[in-house]
Amino acid sequence: MPSKKVIYLGGVPIGGGNPITVQSMLRSSLSDLSSCLQEAWRLLEGGCEIIRVALYDEEQLSNLSSLKRSLKVPLVADVHFVPELAIKALLSGADGVRINPGNMRKVEVIKELARVAREEGKVIRVGVNLGSIPRERRAAYEDDASAMVDLALETIRLLEDEGFENIKVSLKASDVMTTVKAYRLASRVMEYPLHLGITEAGPVWEGAIKSAVGLGILLADGIGDTIRVSLTGDGLKEVEAAYVILRSLGLRKVGVEIVSCPRCGRCEIDLERIVREVEEKVKPIRKYMKVAVMGCVVNGPGEARDADLGIAGGKGKGVIFRKGEILETVSESKLVDRLLKLIKEVEGDEDE
Amino acid sequence: MPSKKVIYLGGVPIGGGNPITVQSMLRSSLSDLSSCLQEAWRLLEGGCEIIRVALYDEEQLSNLSSLKRSLKVPLVADVHFVPELAIKALLSGADGVRINPGNMRKVEVIKELARVAREEGKVIRVGVNLGSIPRERRAAYEDDASAMVDLALETIRLLEDEGFENIKVSLKASDVMTTVKAYRLASRVMEYPLHLGITEAGPVWEGAIKSAVGLGILLADGIGDTIRVSLTGDGLKEVEAAYVILRSLGLRKVGVEIVSCPRCGRCEIDLERIVREVEEKVKPIRKYMKVAVMGCVVNGPGEARDADLGIAGGKGKGVIFRKGEILETVSESKLVDRLLKLIKEVEGDEDE
Repeated sequence: MPSKKVIYLGGVPIGGGNPITVQSMLRSSLSDLSSCLQEAWRLLEGGCEIIRVALYDEEQLSNLSSLKRSLKVPLVADVHFVPELAIKALLSGADGVRINPGNMRKVEVIKELARVAREEGKVIRVGVNLGSIPRERRAAYEDDASAMVDLALETIRLLEDEGFENIKVSLKASDVMTTVKAYRLASRVMEYPLHLGITEAGPVWEGAIKSAVGLGILLADGIGDTIRVSLTGDGLKEVEAAYVILRSLGLRKVGVEIVSCPRCGRCEIDLERIVREVEEKVKPIRKYMKVAVMGCVVNGPGEARDADLGIAGGKGKGVIFRKGEILETVSESKLVDRLLKLIKEVEGDEDE
Repeated sequence: MPSKKVIYLGGVPIGGGNPITVQSMLRSSLSDLSSCLQEAWRLLEGGCEIIRVALYDEEQLSNLSSLKRSLKVPLVADVHFVPELAIKALLSGADGVRINPGNMRKVEVIKELARVAREEGKVIRVGVNLGSIPRERRAAYEDDASAMVDLALETIRLLEDEGFENIKVSLKASDVMTTVKAYRLASRVMEYPLHLGITEAGPVWEGAIKSAVGLGILLADGIGDTIRVSLTGDGLKEVEAAYVILRSLGLRKVGVEIVSCPRCGRCEIDLERIVREVEEKVKPIRKYMKVAVMGCVVNGPGEARDADLGIAGGKGKGVIFRKGEILETVSESKLVDRLLKLIKEVEGDEDE
């Protein structure tokens, strides 16, 4: 089940069954404001709902303020080692901070951070990362999942002692099953919203698959309130992957879902080219719809029947469907244009 | 848990806790033998362990025989509509056939198929595809998952009546949760090995993510004995995705797993380029190892400590680790070459 508590990050509710939000993190250095802004706007266009940025230098605080003023989504500062910097981030306008309890030792400053966050109505993410837990501490536990959850609980208690409960928690490892185990345990022992992610998941392709496995398992169990797919590559891919994961599970219905067959010897149209073309053209569409692009008569009409719009290939031509009704047969050269025109109609259709 | 029964497809055990095998399907038409051979060899090099090909014309049977003679992995013929053709496929050398009960009506011919398969020691996959189930039949069930499982059971009974039990079962829908529900139900009511897949999952990127969600959920539950990721695009991507899914769950340890961080403002080396270069170069390696490519000191050394080999970036240079031991500090320009050399050493190391 979703977290019992709901928190508000810059006005956006997280947890308690609210829609699962999609996050990403800027690759740009906060020292380069214009680069941060360009990157952030691109992520926002792609549907990113919460933006995080690494803050590691006091001189970046004024850029943090400027960035916050330019964004209409919550901004989170990612702080390691120096809790004092997390306090300054909140006072400079960040809606929340992510702290890494694995590399923050100053208990009194963390308590001060909690008091500031409480007064300012801000959020603290207790962001545990397995790789940052000191070796000796990690070795003291039966398994890595328990080591992560226990470290989170210890930090949560510090924050709660200051009357602060606007907390979310993450427990990231690069190993999928360790991560799954940690979040499952956390979902039983704490009531705060959980921010899901597989850390250092890898390059775009393999990292997205790995994240989909881990996040898919947890989300299907009802665990997770906000997600970030971590990929080495374009941050926009993180947002795309996150929405495909959520859409696969019926948790967020955003964008055009393309149902398309893998093409086999039966296929008599250039299916791959058609799918690539459709995929590229529908990317900017945020409205949910299901579009089928099928190569042959075997599964084609059957699956296309379930889609809002669909085409099934024949010999150099195709049949177009709309909600199970055959609309027309058109030549292969006109198939994509005709389909895209119909997709645009569905997009503009208010009563859908 | 895995299936209770074990079957043998061309000598390869499927089910009963045997390693989960990776399949793909040829895009080429069986009418074009040389194209099929080229495609198949490429898939085999990528680690594909079972190859399927669409058979839809009697004239393709001689090519089916030739293809089988040229491959050292099991070959499955994919047959729709015409069970007679499935019988001929088995007699022409295919190790198994996939039949689609949604579009095969001739009960007597299916029984004959079972007798032939039994005599020849071959496998029949009862391959249900939601899109192929007649509309009226589908409407008669409470949900699509039950409709799929019931159709599979009906066909299984036909085969069992002829004393045939060398069966595997698939229940594919393009909707992830419908597919998950169907396989979960099947794992409770039948003992045959399950071939997992999300049908018509879509283009390579989104289809791989969708498949990873669905297959990940099932495999984490212990359901599934052989898998095929269906993507519209290069079949090799299906094999790659399948191994990443299995590796994520610790079910098959094959190839180089790259742990790499998403790069943030703290990163001072060109991490993306390095990761892309390493990713490309290690693709042919089948031996399992974990290689970390980290951008900064925050998580870098910690995570790289867990990897067989790892690098963590500094300013224009990097530190190289091996199993937690710092080996050396090298300049950014030499980092990849040095890492690859060490990877090659681990690859050649027999006692690993």
